[in-house]
Amino acid sequence: MAVTSSGPRVNFAAPRGFAKTFKKKLKETLFPDDPFGGFRNEKPARKSLKTLQYFVPVFDWLPKYDFTKFKFDLVAGITITSLAIPQGISYAKLANIPPIIGLYSSFVPPIIYAVFGSSKHLAVGTVAACSVLLSETIEEKVNFKDNPELYLHLVFTATFFTGIFQTALGFLRLGILVDFLSHSTITGFMTGTAVLICLQQLKGMLGLKHFTSKTDVVHVLKAVFENRNEWRWECFLVGLAFLIFLQLTRFLRNKSPKLFWVSAMAPMISVAIGCIFAYFAPVEKHGIQIVGELKRGINPSSLKYLNFDPEYLPSTIKAGCITGLIALAEGIAIARSFAIIKNEQIDGNKEMVAFGFMNILGSFTSCYLTTGPFSKTAVNFNSGCKTQMANFVMAMCMMLVLLFLAPVFKYTPLVVLSAIIMSAMIGLISYEKIVHLFKVDKLDFCICMAACLGVPFLTMEIGLILSVGLAILRALVYVARPATCKLGKIPNSVLYRDMEQYPDATGFPGILALQIGSPIYFANCNYVRERTLRWIRDEESLSESKSNPVEHVLLDLSGATAIDMTGIETLMEIRRILTSMSIKFGIVNPRIEILDKLTLAHFVDKIGKDSIYLSIDEAVEACRFSLQTDKQHDATS
Amino acid sequence: MAVTSSGPRVNFAAPRGFAKTFKKKLKETLFPDDPFGGFRNEKPARKSLKTLQYFVPVFDWLPKYDFTKFKFDLVAGITITSLAIPQGISYAKLANIPPIIGLYSSFVPPIIYAVFGSSKHLAVGTVAACSVLLSETIEEKVNFKDNPELYLHLVFTATFFTGIFQTALGFLRLGILVDFLSHSTITGFMTGTAVLICLQQLKGMLGLKHFTSKTDVVHVLKAVFENRNEWRWECFLVGLAFLIFLQLTRFLRNKSPKLFWVSAMAPMISVAIGCIFAYFAPVEKHGIQIVGELKRGINPSSLKYLNFDPEYLPSTIKAGCITGLIALAEGIAIARSFAIIKNEQIDGNKEMVAFGFMNILGSFTSCYLTTGPFSKTAVNFNSGCKTQMANFVMAMCMMLVLLFLAPVFKYTPLVVLSAIIMSAMIGLISYEKIVHLFKVDKLDFCICMAACLGVPFLTMEIGLILSVGLAILRALVYVARPATCKLGKIPNSVLYRDMEQYPDATGFPGILALQIGSPIYFANCNYVRERTLRWIRDEESLSESKSNPVEHVLLDLSGATAIDMTGIETLMEIRRILTSMSIKFGIVNPRIEILDKLTLAHFVDKIGKDSIYLSIDEAVEACRFSLQTDKQHDATS
Repeated sequence: MAVTSSGPRVNFAAPRGFAKTFKKKLKETLFPDDPFGGFRNEKPARKSLKTLQYFVPVFDWLPKYDFTKFKFDLVAGITITSLAIPQGISYAKLANIPPIIGLYSSFVPPIIYAVFGSSKHLAVGTVAACSVLLSETIEEKVNFKDNPELYLHLVFTATFFTGIFQTALGFLRLGILVDFLSHSTITGFMTGTAVLICLQQLKGMLGLKHFTSKTDVVHVLKAVFENRNEWRWECFLVGLAFLIFLQLTRFLRNKSPKLFWVSAMAPMISVAIGCIFAYFAPVEKHGIQIVGELKRGINPSSLKYLNFDPEYLPSTIKAGCITGLIALAEGIAIARSFAIIKNEQIDGNKEMVAFGFMNILGSFTSCYLTTGPFSKTAVNFNSGCKTQMANFVMAMCMMLVLLFLAPVFKYTPLVVLSAIIMSAMIGLISYEKIVHLFKVDKLDFCICMAACLGVPFLTMEIGLILSVGLAILRALVYVARPATCKLGKIPNSVLYRDMEQYPDATGFPGILALQIGSPIYFANCNYVRERTLRWIRDEESLSESKSNPVEHVLLDLSGATAIDMTGIETLMEIRRILTSMSIKFGIVNPRIEILDKLTLAHFVDKIGKDSIYLSIDEAVEACRFSLQTDKQHDATS
Repeated sequence: MAVTSSGPRVNFAAPRGFAKTFKKKLKETLFPDDPFGGFRNEKPARKSLKTLQYFVPVFDWLPKYDFTKFKFDLVAGITITSLAIPQGISYAKLANIPPIIGLYSSFVPPIIYAVFGSSKHLAVGTVAACSVLLSETIEEKVNFKDNPELYLHLVFTATFFTGIFQTALGFLRLGILVDFLSHSTITGFMTGTAVLICLQQLKGMLGLKHFTSKTDVVHVLKAVFENRNEWRWECFLVGLAFLIFLQLTRFLRNKSPKLFWVSAMAPMISVAIGCIFAYFAPVEKHGIQIVGELKRGINPSSLKYLNFDPEYLPSTIKAGCITGLIALAEGIAIARSFAIIKNEQIDGNKEMVAFGFMNILGSFTSCYLTTGPFSKTAVNFNSGCKTQMANFVMAMCMMLVLLFLAPVFKYTPLVVLSAIIMSAMIGLISYEKIVHLFKVDKLDFCICMAACLGVPFLTMEIGLILSVGLAILRALVYVARPATCKLGKIPNSVLYRDMEQYPDATGFPGILALQIGSPIYFANCNYVRERTLRWIRDEESLSESKSNPVEHVLLDLSGATAIDMTGIETLMEIRRILTSMSIKFGIVNPRIEILDKLTLAHFVDKIGKDSIYLSIDEAVEACRFSLQTDKQHDATS
């Protein structure tokens, strides 16, 4: 091995202690963003202030707040209120709860978020997908028509559990859970939900009085066509007119983004026109139903309505957790995307706590599930909001509405709400994104389609579970079947690369250099062993190397970041098999985590430090030297 | 970039088609061992013969069989029969079924395995852990005391489902499922089961007549101490004597491995002594119970007993699948270990089909679950077996026993069976292996302990699920939090390595080279982004680099083997963020799978081919050149 002894060598320092590596791993798993890193070396007083500011961001931004910023926030706040009113009423209808709850939900939660939230652009509100999902899950237990009061109480209770679940996730730093909802799953889920909600709106658009409480496409279409005698053309025409109006404003916004306020105001304008129209014209004669009584006054307490009856507990907890997770995924993803535009940082785990507080306190004050919906946040951002104050402004506006204007919305025709929902949902169908997925990654496309088709054709829950399950299965197959490749030397360099990718790279007769790119552990160790042996068989069946049997196998571990006990045993087994075939086995560039464990398991002693190389080039040179020596030896003897 | 243009470049060939990559991936996932690789280029006639030999190995080895081999197989076959009789009776007692079923199970299944099995050394038989697990699962539905006939029929049905499940797994090439039972899980499960079974044997050792049907430690110990009045010292003394005798023979075997036959014969000798003793002495007066009636004759058909009543179907299917999976894991692991010693190949998926056939046909002929138990296989191997013929010899011997000798075993004292089981179980408690796990890998130790403590203290099923769940969770965390590290140049070389592992490696001011070792995809992309930004913050907070802000970030993707849509979007996002911080972003050595997708997603076009490097060294040189040019530019302007 004289050739290589002068060069740099593998660092065989004693393995790092368990406590040290465990602490490091735990930190990487739960605190990947190192939230306290910024003020670790400050004085105690300043440190506690910084910590307080970290946990309650209002203390961070309010002292620096000034009137210039307020002017922007005021405009943004008023704009999003005009969106919050129609959305609040519509989505409450989707969740099958009284419309006033939707308005309540835009009063308390935004105030809580303004205090605890860290995103400057997020606008708090209710969301369509979660409203339907919530309703679907609770409907399994209690029908909203049979017992509207109990149903409403269970919705509050589910919201309470959503809050508890979100807060717990945040405090336990389990943001990692949200990471398992991939973009593809969310794209599919959103599209599927949009289709499903659009179809449901046929009830409102056609003025139907009887409908199914099921959400899947088959039942919904059946209900639409079975009640053909209830179809009202007047209703449909009005709905279509509003829908066209709303879609036109969207089209306008897409054409010139500066006109975003036109589309932001459009739903409010639709509601206003609808109200006036319904107030003066005898619409109900023509089958156009209206929202009905809305009580004046701000949120009453709903503390006493929280229902912890063991009979309903499983449903409410399930509804709370699933909707909570989706709401988090949506809210955090949106907060992140807008923060990226402005080059700011969002701490996912902290956001979870803010969302959690928002929903817990919401459930005490007659609100249902809120998060950061995309449409509202985009409008908030475009209106030029500067801080969380915009949410506070919205809450104040909503308070005024609740105190003085609520009864006015009594006349809102249901068909207008359906048109608003449909228009919003059409915007969520991301046809282009799905085509892009299909072009780039077929498996991601399948994951997306599982949600996209599962949600409208089965149930939302099953569609979501299918999609997430498929994504996790893929993750497991990734680690169970890691990519391996044969390395060859690129001419005129010291670089060794995949011979499939670089066809001009060449190997050396008698030496087989393999690269493995994954942690080596129980799920893939049988594969790693089989695959290594197959590479050797393949190499020996190549005609050119028949005269040169494989004498050295080098395993490049640069890409392997971890190993477990089963993995170490596999490496030992591979070595044993190769030895019985009189092939020498060498390991190249084991990373620190792997070398630590190999040392502890006495593998390094068994294989010998001479067989562990720092680079492929060095290893190949050493093997070639040994091959030559053997040949000379054969020749002389 | 003039510095690098002369060297080798990244291969930007057009991406490979989806069909090609998909076919390759599917092959790697399901056919990692390339079973037909050996005879792909043969003539059709030879090809079909080879295929037949592949699927039914008896056609492969029988034509080459000769008398010399038979002599060895005859000795091995007789030796394992002497083990099969006491084990068969004992384990049938563990499963709470008539002892004769245990003997039946050593007649038909070995013949099937001799035809379809590919391992030369595996000896077929019943196993303790699966017997208890089977009984535990079916007991949930039917108590064996209340309705022994129905209970037995459900055991046959569960065995049938085991066979169907194993065959299906084999045909679907889902050997990958067995890979998810790690060594640590199996070690823990075996140890936990051994403890649990040992404690259960206190019933036999103390001669108790009343006992619990629960298997957990608390219930078993309670049953032992609550029935103190039934304790029989005579019984205990006899049991202890046999246990000491059996353990002594084990000790002898460990001292000199050539005496393995002493310990192999010991259980049979114990049974023989016990029978003679019970035949002549009035043992039942002293509380020593005997096995009781055993009918003469070979396996009756049990086809009509298979019970597909929907009421019991969930239990039998569950019992069949869980025990089937564990039996596979044990059988395949054992076949593999012995094949490795002899440098032979075992095809896990083919073994599954053989096990499956064995259990399906077994369930038709009054047998219960069989697999390849460790003890029997080791004895078979040590007795010098040459082929699967040894199993056939065992089957023939067992036939003779069933036809002529069965009634003799009527006198076997239960206490002797308890001593045999206890002795076997004590040998399975792998204390040293667990200590080794603790030393090398704390997480593997936890996975092992979950099974080891869960099995005796909760239920076997829960213990197993806990352990597998923990292992899968670990696998997911592996991919969700991949190791990243900062690279530095090792002095006097062109090698870049982890600066934590190689403290003398040095970085270059203004250039941050990071390595990521994992597929980049939905589960870790938030982490990858956060961590990259944190590396930059950390780098900038280092005092020495305050004067040199980071201007180039290089991401070494050598260790990343795959990327999905979310991953690509993350890379784009990182690039966008870095651009807004006026930092240049470069990618080093993307592997073929990644480059394909980056090209399809137009990422390569966006970042520019100039920013994708073949090696870290080349990339750093290019960045240094650009930094120098900038400085000269600053100086001149």
